[in-house]
Amino acid sequence: MNVHIVGTGLLGTSLGLSLSRHGYRVTLEDLSPTAVQLAADMGAGEADHPKDPDVVVIATPPDVVAQVIVDALRTWPNATITDVASVKTAILDAVKQHTRDRELDRYIGSHPMAGREKSGAIAARADLFMGRPWVVCSDEDTPQERLEQVVTIAQAVGASVMHLDPLFHDSSVARVSHAPQVVASIMAAQLIDMPSEGVALAGQGLRDTTRIADSDPGLWTQILAGNAAEVAAVLRDIRSDLDRVIDALDVRPGSLRTIAGSIAAGNDGRARIPGKHGMAPATYETVTVYVDDAPGTLSRLFADIGGLGVNIEDIRIDHATGVKLGSVELSVVPAHVQVLVQGLSENGWRLPEQALDPKEEK
Amino acid sequence: MNVHIVGTGLLGTSLGLSLSRHGYRVTLEDLSPTAVQLAADMGAGEADHPKDPDVVVIATPPDVVAQVIVDALRTWPNATITDVASVKTAILDAVKQHTRDRELDRYIGSHPMAGREKSGAIAARADLFMGRPWVVCSDEDTPQERLEQVVTIAQAVGASVMHLDPLFHDSSVARVSHAPQVVASIMAAQLIDMPSEGVALAGQGLRDTTRIADSDPGLWTQILAGNAAEVAAVLRDIRSDLDRVIDALDVRPGSLRTIAGSIAAGNDGRARIPGKHGMAPATYETVTVYVDDAPGTLSRLFADIGGLGVNIEDIRIDHATGVKLGSVELSVVPAHVQVLVQGLSENGWRLPEQALDPKEEK
Repeated sequence: MNVHIVGTGLLGTSLGLSLSRHGYRVTLEDLSPTAVQLAADMGAGEADHPKDPDVVVIATPPDVVAQVIVDALRTWPNATITDVASVKTAILDAVKQHTRDRELDRYIGSHPMAGREKSGAIAARADLFMGRPWVVCSDEDTPQERLEQVVTIAQAVGASVMHLDPLFHDSSVARVSHAPQVVASIMAAQLIDMPSEGVALAGQGLRDTTRIADSDPGLWTQILAGNAAEVAAVLRDIRSDLDRVIDALDVRPGSLRTIAGSIAAGNDGRARIPGKHGMAPATYETVTVYVDDAPGTLSRLFADIGGLGVNIEDIRIDHATGVKLGSVELSVVPAHVQVLVQGLSENGWRLPEQALDPKEEK
Repeated sequence: MNVHIVGTGLLGTSLGLSLSRHGYRVTLEDLSPTAVQLAADMGAGEADHPKDPDVVVIATPPDVVAQVIVDALRTWPNATITDVASVKTAILDAVKQHTRDRELDRYIGSHPMAGREKSGAIAARADLFMGRPWVVCSDEDTPQERLEQVVTIAQAVGASVMHLDPLFHDSSVARVSHAPQVVASIMAAQLIDMPSEGVALAGQGLRDTTRIADSDPGLWTQILAGNAAEVAAVLRDIRSDLDRVIDALDVRPGSLRTIAGSIAAGNDGRARIPGKHGMAPATYETVTVYVDDAPGTLSRLFADIGGLGVNIEDIRIDHATGVKLGSVELSVVPAHVQVLVQGLSENGWRLPEQALDPKEEK
């Protein structure tokens, strides 16, 4: 299968790298001659404008995707056209306006849910899509063999294909990704005018809730504008919940139930997020180890853990404030806690007293 | 110094454990005979009602702290009284209403910024306060020797003392902790009614932004009600930013600037959060390693990293969806990237192609 990639940024170049390594013939084009040459030099494919590719993948910035799809449908009258933009309905609507029905059958929108904090060809990775969901949007008119071409590409690069309706996709990503981005950015923005002594009280909770506020404003403006109605709908839901909490705080003490209810609802919503590998969240125990900031400390810790043969499910490192000390939380299955605690303390690691000496409740 | 602790939950018991190990004579009391006996059995101190303690630490649930402080000022007319509640102004106001000026001089509010996801004496740790900020609220009338008693206790358990005005403390924690808790809970609650196929699109970003939504509704209702005015003020700021983004999304395309501005403001706010040990955020490079889910994989990885002698600054584990594969992001100083990448790949670890073969830009 010959695959032509239009747009050699992070996603296009990563796709080219992976498909090339899996034996596909990949051609590349980009408005920027530098970008396409860089991608070709990295091994993502050949810089070329092919006559008759089997599949064309549009990986341009989201705000021009629809126009590029329409052009591609005209340029390559036999090709299956797909794209990798993170919104689907607005693009499909725009493409519909400028194509005939028969042409439209050759367009299958898709959305690989992969990305990095860095952008451009230079940040590309052949394994970017490995283990990630790749949403494919088809309908009853989509020819089966064209659908299979897109699915084959997604699976070739290691992604996990999900077939979704475009509107369902857009409302879902608005809720699990786009609105959380807006809210995290707004929350981080509340820190701008704070005195430093106040920001110094920030803990790991604030770091986690605002981590994605580091995202690129240019890209996110395109994403949010492209899914504006769905994102606005979720933000209205959030605003209405916010209004209820603000009202409850204003008229206290008559309204503790609303406040408690909002925190409890957060528990319920949080419980819906799947655990690792899409399964129900597993219950692990955490074992905490205190570490100083000397070079090599963490590496020694990991060497010791490796020696104990305990399977670590997850790790969280929490840096202390003001002193050269941090703590490492290791998640393990309950059956391994004792081995880990005993082994680490025998190796001289500092663990919380309670972990070392768990006296029984009488 | 004799220290009496009233309330043997997570904080009170942890404080007792640590002070006892540092040679302080600690006595304990709690409304629950079981709780105080458990704390005593764990080694947090002696269950007793002392005649003349030097310092009394009130570590009861926040909603009864003020009343317990007032009672303690009466019960022990020579003692310095402090508390560990996470709000300070409302407590001080309530204590003022029920005490004379001379009595009030013996009360010094404090707030150790430490906690766990678990509660109760059984979750206590002698090292809970290690490296954490411990806010002390005094004013010009506070006798120096009493202030020093509280500071000495905080430092004895390894905390880093910050002297702050109660109102400044409350408005700061509203912004860096209480309002983010409300927002994270509200955001997580948006997932409750979603179809599972939609929630399955959730990535690491949503996991991070909603992690603290797991918090205890009972405790947080007390905290939020105790700092209601300050939390409501921050939530109003957030709501007004949210309104602007919703309006911008509604009237697009005339308002991209507002959308981009909100994401960019998030970048600016995020940049204000101190890095580890309270210093300016350092710039690390991340090296990604792909790992399968076989038992012992992470342990082998850490053993190999240990063998390379590279200092790992931070770790993030990202679990893939639908397949048994995850990725581990290791943060290291730029000078160590090459050693780590080469060493790991020589040991047979799967790294992103780009990391292994970084061709130069022409």
